[in-house]
Amino acid sequence: MSAVTQGTRLDRTVVERIVREVVRSRVNGAPAASKPNLLVNISARHMHITQENLEILFGPGAKLTVMKGLYQEGQFASEQTVTIIGPRHRTITNMRILGPCRTLNQIELAFTDGIAMGIDLPVKMSGDVKGTPGCIVLGPKGHVELKEGVIRAMRHVHMHPRDAEYYGVTQGERMLLDVRSGCPMKFDDVVCRIDPAFKLEVHIDTDEGNACDLPNATQVELIKK
Amino acid sequence: MSAVTQGTRLDRTVVERIVREVVRSRVNGAPAASKPNLLVNISARHMHITQENLEILFGPGAKLTVMKGLYQEGQFASEQTVTIIGPRHRTITNMRILGPCRTLNQIELAFTDGIAMGIDLPVKMSGDVKGTPGCIVLGPKGHVELKEGVIRAMRHVHMHPRDAEYYGVTQGERMLLDVRSGCPMKFDDVVCRIDPAFKLEVHIDTDEGNACDLPNATQVELIKK
Repeated sequence: MSAVTQGTRLDRTVVERIVREVVRSRVNGAPAASKPNLLVNISARHMHITQENLEILFGPGAKLTVMKGLYQEGQFASEQTVTIIGPRHRTITNMRILGPCRTLNQIELAFTDGIAMGIDLPVKMSGDVKGTPGCIVLGPKGHVELKEGVIRAMRHVHMHPRDAEYYGVTQGERMLLDVRSGCPMKFDDVVCRIDPAFKLEVHIDTDEGNACDLPNATQVELIKK
Repeated sequence: MSAVTQGTRLDRTVVERIVREVVRSRVNGAPAASKPNLLVNISARHMHITQENLEILFGPGAKLTVMKGLYQEGQFASEQTVTIIGPRHRTITNMRILGPCRTLNQIELAFTDGIAMGIDLPVKMSGDVKGTPGCIVLGPKGHVELKEGVIRAMRHVHMHPRDAEYYGVTQGERMLLDVRSGCPMKFDDVVCRIDPAFKLEVHIDTDEGNACDLPNATQVELIKK
């Protein structure tokens, strides 16, 4: 079901978008931009790591090796996994590291994981880890104690600037994601992350993906609020 | 934030509700019914059990004993817990039985639990277990093999008939639940279960409660669609 065909439920944001598209096509003397292909993916719990910590955990000279490429160019699920230990000595094993290495260490968990671990997770955008909880990370060759970096990632959408233009949104703006399934749901406040290196893709976590039964969704729609 | 104060986002359902309330108050010559107190609670995974199976698991003459009363009159979390074993021999331990005993056996899990157990959970209303997956249930004195009864419960709202009248909804109708929090979300298709024995209470599962950060919600609103 496209928002445009909702009949009596046609609302102000949809009308605005239609007007914007028509105006743009007339001003430019070209047809309105075609609707970009929207992917919504579930991010399972994972870790981002620095080269320095990778070598502590996996040994001197260790490199992340590709298990599977991700949709965002150059990003991958690595073959390397770690175990994390929380404040009550509870553990999560087999947590995958996403590559390539970054300049900061960050562990992204769902609230279900946080409750199991006894960690009260703050909801943050990736990279905003100052003052967040830490944990101990174990690898086959060593361990590190992270002082901070354990978060629940705020739901977000990666966008190329031409996608942002299509939807009429700017950096950090919050959009609505409508998921139609047997457990239908509208996610408010999907944060826009716009970068020329990005492809259009929404990331939600496992709690969110399970709540709306994303794997069996019949339609997803991203809507300017 | 009340839906009534959304300003430019005031929509058709809100207008309809206001009109309905005003009309009702004039027709009856009495003030409109006051807004019922809305509780939204998370149902963690649990089991409902027959007296027969309780005695197999806990011994002849076993009774469920109250650990904690629930909001619905007469319902309680019992002191009794079981272990369930799924098709890949994965287990969930310490799963609580809710009392009193019923005429059918039913196990309600979240999708996160189902994935961990290797069970593809159907989304069902309570009691609608025909053809659903089964599992093995262990108690301290025995075990039973359930042929069916393992489900994800569809999100629903328990309502007294006067609540249904307030919202203008009928048995089985689907409402929208709007949760305001740091992870705001609108649940479509919250199914109405109306019974004179019920008190107004929405039940969502742990995936849904975690997805919208219900414990830190600042406002919840139930809206006729």
